[in-house]
Amino acid sequence: MKTKDHILAASLTLMNEEGETSVSSVDIANYLDISPGNLYYHFKGKDEIIPALFDLFEQEMQIILRSSPQDLTSIEDQWIVSYIVLEEIWDFRFFYRNLDGILSKYPILIPRFKRLLMAKRRTIHENIDQLVRLGVLRIENLLKDNLVEQILLIYTYWLNLRHLEDNSVSAKTAIHQSVFQIMTLCVPYMGKNGHAALKGMKRLLHANTVTK
Amino acid sequence: MKTKDHILAASLTLMNEEGETSVSSVDIANYLDISPGNLYYHFKGKDEIIPALFDLFEQEMQIILRSSPQDLTSIEDQWIVSYIVLEEIWDFRFFYRNLDGILSKYPILIPRFKRLLMAKRRTIHENIDQLVRLGVLRIENLLKDNLVEQILLIYTYWLNLRHLEDNSVSAKTAIHQSVFQIMTLCVPYMGKNGHAALKGMKRLLHANTVTK
Repeated sequence: MKTKDHILAASLTLMNEEGETSVSSVDIANYLDISPGNLYYHFKGKDEIIPALFDLFEQEMQIILRSSPQDLTSIEDQWIVSYIVLEEIWDFRFFYRNLDGILSKYPILIPRFKRLLMAKRRTIHENIDQLVRLGVLRIENLLKDNLVEQILLIYTYWLNLRHLEDNSVSAKTAIHQSVFQIMTLCVPYMGKNGHAALKGMKRLLHANTVTK
Repeated sequence: MKTKDHILAASLTLMNEEGETSVSSVDIANYLDISPGNLYYHFKGKDEIIPALFDLFEQEMQIILRSSPQDLTSIEDQWIVSYIVLEEIWDFRFFYRNLDGILSKYPILIPRFKRLLMAKRRTIHENIDQLVRLGVLRIENLLKDNLVEQILLIYTYWLNLRHLEDNSVSAKTAIHQSVFQIMTLCVPYMGKNGHAALKGMKRLLHANTVTK
């Protein structure tokens, strides 16, 4: 790992833990035990670090979202797909915690964040369509659009809501609760399989959140 | 209206339009055409203005949330209740746009915001229970809890998501879209009335958002 990567990894850790506004470039240098001058050689302060972190997030998220909806063969696969998306968001949660603040300080990121939002919406749509094709879900178009929007809302803000109510919640618990929330939105459209699926989802949630 | 009230009203307008971080107490004084000294006589800067605005929001929201669930007699009433809550949030939207930032700058507001969140959850729960008692909704308990959480998520973050995607969206459109989202979540639990109700909701949305 090069110094540049160390700086990015340290910045991410600190900002996720303390919030973007509470972390200065001097804090990051101190954390790594390097001089501010050395840090400055790689990044001209936070103004360059934040966009570099966004680059990383964007790259990783695009790879995740590019996976083919054809890979979905059951409702359980939807659980896994949601988990992966939310885990990625958790890894860069400082962006989401202060979305408005960061986007107004770094307006260059606004169109890129919007594109990512659109890519997420498209992927959710394709996955739901795939579940409809498989006969797993049965849903009319208008309600489908709304279901997609609700899942997008969960992806974007659920972790924030959890954090607001309990700032010591573990990653595992928070992410599984979000996924469970997404899955329960699908239950009414699963017909007579819905009830059994819900019980399975609840067991899965319990197994993953009861021991911390 | 006293100077104190004028200051609060001006602060609210400016912060809603430009975001809390972009507005200084000098901006507020300029907007009102009073001297910073005069403003300082009433409020010792933003540190006193923000909590005073939160007082207002909290009072108004508590009155709204205190309305009895017994007043709900149909699914249409749920539309109206949601509309009133979201309109109130819209009026104080600067809090929600930068929730994390404001709460970390004014930690005194954290427990109060959490209490408000709990009061919202309780009211949503009571209203859903009332619709179940009326026979309007039929939903199993576990899914009911998730429905409540999803409505709470919409109340808290939907307007932010809309703003992110289109920062020129009108209050009327944004609020009606949010309410529509809430209502569609109820449709699967309305049995055979669901389809007709959805069509009615769609008409209502269209009538309220097509002309701006």
